[in-house]
Amino acid sequence: MDFAYDARTEELRAALDTFLRDHVYPAEPVFAEQLETTPAWERPPIVQTLKAEAKRHGLWNLFLPGENGAGLSNLQYAPLAELTGRSPDLAPEALNCAAPDTGNMELLQEFGTPEQQATWLVPLLNGTIRSAFCMTEPEVASSDATNIATSITADGDDYVIDGRKWWSTGAMAPVCELLVVMGRTNPDAAKHRQQSMVLVPRSTSGVDVRRGMRLFGYTDSAHGGHAEVVFDNVRVPKGNLIGNEGDGFAIAQARLGPGRIHHCMRLIGMAERALELMCRRAVERTPFGKPLAEQGVVQDWIAESRVRIEQLRLLVLKTAWLMDTVGNQGAHTEIQAIKIATPSSVEWIIDKAIQAHGAAGLSQDFPLASLWTAARSLRLADGPDEVHRRSLARRELRAYRKDPHAH
Amino acid sequence: MDFAYDARTEELRAALDTFLRDHVYPAEPVFAEQLETTPAWERPPIVQTLKAEAKRHGLWNLFLPGENGAGLSNLQYAPLAELTGRSPDLAPEALNCAAPDTGNMELLQEFGTPEQQATWLVPLLNGTIRSAFCMTEPEVASSDATNIATSITADGDDYVIDGRKWWSTGAMAPVCELLVVMGRTNPDAAKHRQQSMVLVPRSTSGVDVRRGMRLFGYTDSAHGGHAEVVFDNVRVPKGNLIGNEGDGFAIAQARLGPGRIHHCMRLIGMAERALELMCRRAVERTPFGKPLAEQGVVQDWIAESRVRIEQLRLLVLKTAWLMDTVGNQGAHTEIQAIKIATPSSVEWIIDKAIQAHGAAGLSQDFPLASLWTAARSLRLADGPDEVHRRSLARRELRAYRKDPHAH
Amino acid sequence: MDFAYDARTEELRAALDTFLRDHVYPAEPVFAEQLETTPAWERPPIVQTLKAEAKRHGLWNLFLPGENGAGLSNLQYAPLAELTGRSPDLAPEALNCAAPDTGNMELLQEFGTPEQQATWLVPLLNGTIRSAFCMTEPEVASSDATNIATSITADGDDYVIDGRKWWSTGAMAPVCELLVVMGRTNPDAAKHRQQSMVLVPRSTSGVDVRRGMRLFGYTDSAHGGHAEVVFDNVRVPKGNLIGNEGDGFAIAQARLGPGRIHHCMRLIGMAERALELMCRRAVERTPFGKPLAEQGVVQDWIAESRVRIEQLRLLVLKTAWLMDTVGNQGAHTEIQAIKIATPSSVEWIIDKAIQAHGAAGLSQDFPLASLWTAARSLRLADGPDEVHRRSLARRELRAYRKDPHAH
Amino acid sequence: MDFAYDARTEELRAALDTFLRDHVYPAEPVFAEQLETTPAWERPPIVQTLKAEAKRHGLWNLFLPGENGAGLSNLQYAPLAELTGRSPDLAPEALNCAAPDTGNMELLQEFGTPEQQATWLVPLLNGTIRSAFCMTEPEVASSDATNIATSITADGDDYVIDGRKWWSTGAMAPVCELLVVMGRTNPDAAKHRQQSMVLVPRSTSGVDVRRGMRLFGYTDSAHGGHAEVVFDNVRVPKGNLIGNEGDGFAIAQARLGPGRIHHCMRLIGMAERALELMCRRAVERTPFGKPLAEQGVVQDWIAESRVRIEQLRLLVLKTAWLMDTVGNQGAHTEIQAIKIATPSSVEWIIDKAIQAHGAAGLSQDFPLASLWTAARSLRLADGPDEVHRRSLARRELRAYRKDPHAH
Repeated sequence: MDFAYDARTEELRAALDTFLRDHVYPAEPVFAEQLETTPAWERPPIVQTLKAEAKRHGLWNLFLPGENGAGLSNLQYAPLAELTGRSPDLAPEALNCAAPDTGNMELLQEFGTPEQQATWLVPLLNGTIRSAFCMTEPEVASSDATNIATSITADGDDYVIDGRKWWSTGAMAPVCELLVVMGRTNPDAAKHRQQSMVLVPRSTSGVDVRRGMRLFGYTDSAHGGHAEVVFDNVRVPKGNLIGNEGDGFAIAQARLGPGRIHHCMRLIGMAERALELMCRRAVERTPFGKPLAEQGVVQDWIAESRVRIEQLRLLVLKTAWLMDTVGNQGAHTEIQAIKIATPSSVEWIIDKAIQAHGAAGLSQDFPLASLWTAARSLRLADGPDEVHRRSLARRELRAYRKDPHAH
Repeated sequence: MDFAYDARTEELRAALDTFLRDHVYPAEPVFAEQLETTPAWERPPIVQTLKAEAKRHGLWNLFLPGENGAGLSNLQYAPLAELTGRSPDLAPEALNCAAPDTGNMELLQEFGTPEQQATWLVPLLNGTIRSAFCMTEPEVASSDATNIATSITADGDDYVIDGRKWWSTGAMAPVCELLVVMGRTNPDAAKHRQQSMVLVPRSTSGVDVRRGMRLFGYTDSAHGGHAEVVFDNVRVPKGNLIGNEGDGFAIAQARLGPGRIHHCMRLIGMAERALELMCRRAVERTPFGKPLAEQGVVQDWIAESRVRIEQLRLLVLKTAWLMDTVGNQGAHTEIQAIKIATPSSVEWIIDKAIQAHGAAGLSQDFPLASLWTAARSLRLADGPDEVHRRSLARRELRAYRKDPHAH
Repeated sequence: MDFAYDARTEELRAALDTFLRDHVYPAEPVFAEQLETTPAWERPPIVQTLKAEAKRHGLWNLFLPGENGAGLSNLQYAPLAELTGRSPDLAPEALNCAAPDTGNMELLQEFGTPEQQATWLVPLLNGTIRSAFCMTEPEVASSDATNIATSITADGDDYVIDGRKWWSTGAMAPVCELLVVMGRTNPDAAKHRQQSMVLVPRSTSGVDVRRGMRLFGYTDSAHGGHAEVVFDNVRVPKGNLIGNEGDGFAIAQARLGPGRIHHCMRLIGMAERALELMCRRAVERTPFGKPLAEQGVVQDWIAESRVRIEQLRLLVLKTAWLMDTVGNQGAHTEIQAIKIATPSSVEWIIDKAIQAHGAAGLSQDFPLASLWTAARSLRLADGPDEVHRRSLARRELRAYRKDPHAH
Repeated sequence: MDFAYDARTEELRAALDTFLRDHVYPAEPVFAEQLETTPAWERPPIVQTLKAEAKRHGLWNLFLPGENGAGLSNLQYAPLAELTGRSPDLAPEALNCAAPDTGNMELLQEFGTPEQQATWLVPLLNGTIRSAFCMTEPEVASSDATNIATSITADGDDYVIDGRKWWSTGAMAPVCELLVVMGRTNPDAAKHRQQSMVLVPRSTSGVDVRRGMRLFGYTDSAHGGHAEVVFDNVRVPKGNLIGNEGDGFAIAQARLGPGRIHHCMRLIGMAERALELMCRRAVERTPFGKPLAEQGVVQDWIAESRVRIEQLRLLVLKTAWLMDTVGNQGAHTEIQAIKIATPSSVEWIIDKAIQAHGAAGLSQDFPLASLWTAARSLRLADGPDEVHRRSLARRELRAYRKDPHAH
């Protein structure tokens, strides 16, 4: 048992930390200013600058295993994902490590044909286009992929897609050229073999990117929003299928594990940023003649935040290690556990940081309200926490159902 | 001891309930639609329609004691404020019972000169103009009014105002013609006699309504936003002073008690609305083959929500009764207690209603995210909860400091 | 709506408060000392002294409506029950207002025959004997009285009782001469008509008072403990039946409402006592050079305790008022709500008072650990909170099941 | 970074697990039965049997580094301490790994003279005597060792000890022959050099073991209770000093780190045991026609318990690893963090296990109430959590005090 990061990880952490200090944090106010005048759903220009800079520093596609990326293990990438979470509006995209492109690149790398990779993976790896993942639907419980109702029907050399998706993050943006769509190809197959995934160019006729869903008033415009997309008789060639018919569920599962690690580590980075802001505020602000830093309640928040963060990080890192050593299946309980533990704890921490800032903490003058919204959303994204809690409990109870006296 | 509303209250509750069902709830989707095309900081036209309708039904200025209003006690108005909280974007304004006009009308009625009343109170009572209350400042702890730094300096027949305010709700809107400004007239006076209040027409030279503060991602545009306002050498005649020089703090305190009741009762109405939406969703939605309404965790949320609401309502009503019977001073502890108890509990309830709705609950498709933001904001408005908790504790400890063996 | 106690209540509160100060609080250390040398399951002699004193002051049987008692309404008795909770080891018994005698006297008064009343009610009213209520059974979920398995079989002029009960409070004590036993007389009747109640002298052959159940480490010896009682072919004359065969469930329900009020109000009294101790400690103790009373976290506990107590008391009082005005049935939701809200909140308050006392708070040197145990137990007594929460939620959901769009 | 236990640890874990199954769990009911008839403060005979058995299996003094013990690192011993926590009344003592002997043996091994070791360490290592640690005093805040008031005065060849201690765990038992006493030798020295530690045979004249402190009604009789001990002119030879005069504080600190690891890991073992009991109960019990295991609220408790346990264990293991690699000083924050996180979380878990058991969970029929009391006590032992939270916060804030813009 060893709790130290390995040398490669430490080296990349140092490089990334320097990059954040030199380029990303200073870009934050520029981004906010440019945002006021950038047309809806387009990126402020500073984002492009940062991407070029990151590429130049070799901080590019760090998330991706294999030759196309940095070739890091989950355990090696996790602490880097944490660092990007410190500036979540800028750092992940700057490094070409932003969802949902990360998951889409992973699946194209693992399951894509050479043609699919040439057409879509290459520009994604280069950061010249963005992509969206169209899975969740308004009418069904999104926490169970087998509920998906969108139909993908074979018709001659094509597939025809009909259905309605929402929360397709990034799809409002013109730069998003690719939609990865999950649908049902065979309603008569076994439950987990009914689904398939197809690649749909956003410009395909019949694709109607209808509106952006808001999160607590935020449009997330600079990230292409969260689109409701209607697919009405959308026709793509059969060559756009990823893997085989019926592989959709399995591919979605494969995509899930690393994504969970990324999300959770970024959240931990957000929590560290929020704690940092809380500490700064605490030493700078002196209402009623005593610095916040000397008030017991604020100290309590700070201590509790630190203690929670340490626990969360260890849990996520152990999960990454398990995925690397025994695979996603063997890490199933832990992958659920980090989803249960992380968003709610991070939400708590950011809430306290907001409270320490007074009304300013609710406003655009600090990143806290936006960070909070990210954490709150992740209590629902990928299925509500409650679904994961129930599932984890059932697994825990399994041994006792066979033998109530199991130790 | 008697826990039943009196006859007049019951009659008005019934009338208001009917008005909500017949006019306000149906107007909600219209409001949302009009909002998309209404210029920033202006009211969607449906608001005007509702105001006319409410006036026609005699549901107008219910909050105001005395002849100018409905002449209700705090205890009688409180349950009506609760009902308006069920549709907080529309009902309070429709009935001309929206903050901060309510507090401004109260102080003009109680402390205004006949000239001030003719100029400002009459159009406010008629609902033809709106007003703002400029108190909180970016640089000082807003929970203590004696910290106010904006200066109001006598100069000949005028007062000259210099300072910076923010969170001046409503002030972004052109229809807001009056700013009630709290500032310091005499830095050498006793601590609570340094402040004064003056009436400043929004169009006065030197008034710079600079930007709207956001709450999470919301601008609250349809309500005139929350403005940062800079007063740079702003000159108003001395006749614009409310009461006497040095009365500012006392007037602000007088304004506070009823406002606290209104805020808390509206929050309780929001909690009822959220609970209602949660129950509806619970019976309609059947993920994983079992209605949410039969899932233990959701039942737990519903029960806890009901139990909390009942307790909160009784506490606020008792506080209103105390204010009516022994005055604001005698109700001091309770006025703090409702501020401590209500926003955080209501926030909890709305959070659970959101969770029951899945990602839809975070979006513009339900009022929940917006309701939640209102509750969250009130953990900071009027001073952070923590300040009130500390103050209430000190009062509780007072007897023991004199005699540790006090029973 | 009126939140003031009536004159009779105020008068009795004052008298009881004086009695507590003059007699009960000073008796507490005496009780603790006598306890060390009193044989197990017997009362320390000071209890008898206090009973005589209370009777002399006319503070006797206050709980009982009608001529045999003080004739108070639930709403009038509730604040007196609260005061007895301030010294729960002594005051309730001193006033002959201790459970389970209170419930047993109520049912004997309401449903007993003249013979039963002469034999059992009179000595109970005089406080010369004690009684127990044998309902809960080890093998069934005690939250549903229809689960009761103990059999009561008619045999000639007798009933024969067989079964096992536990948590029969008081039954370990010799002074407990009467067991009120709930059992099943007719397994074929409708679900709520199968049960009956019989009076069983504790000395009857076949009654085996087997052992005292402990609560955490407490035996509650001075109150006759919490007995496990085996009934093995126990024979009593048919005249010992209360009411008619099949009335058991209905009688148990009638007994429940007032008991819930008593329990909850006593808990509130315990919370007040704990808060008082916490405040005293806070002003007296100065670790690390600053009084606890000036430490933010302790202030937070004190404020939160006060705010919770005020809400709980109002909820319980409203419930008492509902029972007085519309009956137990009409107060059903509220009777559940106070069970859900009170024990857990009071437990929280006492926990904080313990924490403020350091390790002393866990020990016999303060009443806090014992008070805490009482509150913790009541999260389970009368059925776990979770059962009541589920039931309240179902009731809340009822309207929506008929019409999901109910407002 | 590697999250797997090393081979030696795995081997010992397996051996200890087998020992628990074969010997300890079966001994639990025997212990409970013997306890009823064992004289106060003496060990039930089964304890001696288990000690012999453990010795025979080589599971003896596992906690102790160096040649006298098993020579394990903190990281290696930690998971074994966890396993002993599964049966905390029996396993730690059976393995001669029970507090406070562990800490006392550590300090005798590290700081004792050959004579002291021959007289006291040898019989402690053999398990033929027990010892107590007399540090906490009734009148001072025990969380700061510099507050200690007991005086140790040099007088000729002797030290004379005067003072009052309490919570001296184990000291009520005759088998406890040694008291390690912390006191003040030089009130004029620097703050952390005033204290010294001396060895006092329990039989020394002037040692008055006055009474046992109770924890929630428990006497902990079978473990020698928690004594209040008065030292009245107690005289011991100067050779009984441990280390040098003024070393007391430093020795106490050295003793603290490993003890914290042991306590926390045992608590985690208790939490695992409680979770196990909760799961068993959940599959066995079917109130209202549905197994507890299928009720959402119970599933929620189980999932949350698992998620918390995993996080706690990782945090404690990392702390042990830090102590092994960078020393106690470098692990300071983490040693505080585990004290803050563990007792309160484990208390929560055990509380839920109790609730799932109904009233039985509060009683002597299950170990849960006793386990809960252990966890609750540890929120205060070694200083209240609040003190550690404040201290950790100050450390966190340190960097910001120097530079508010620290990242």
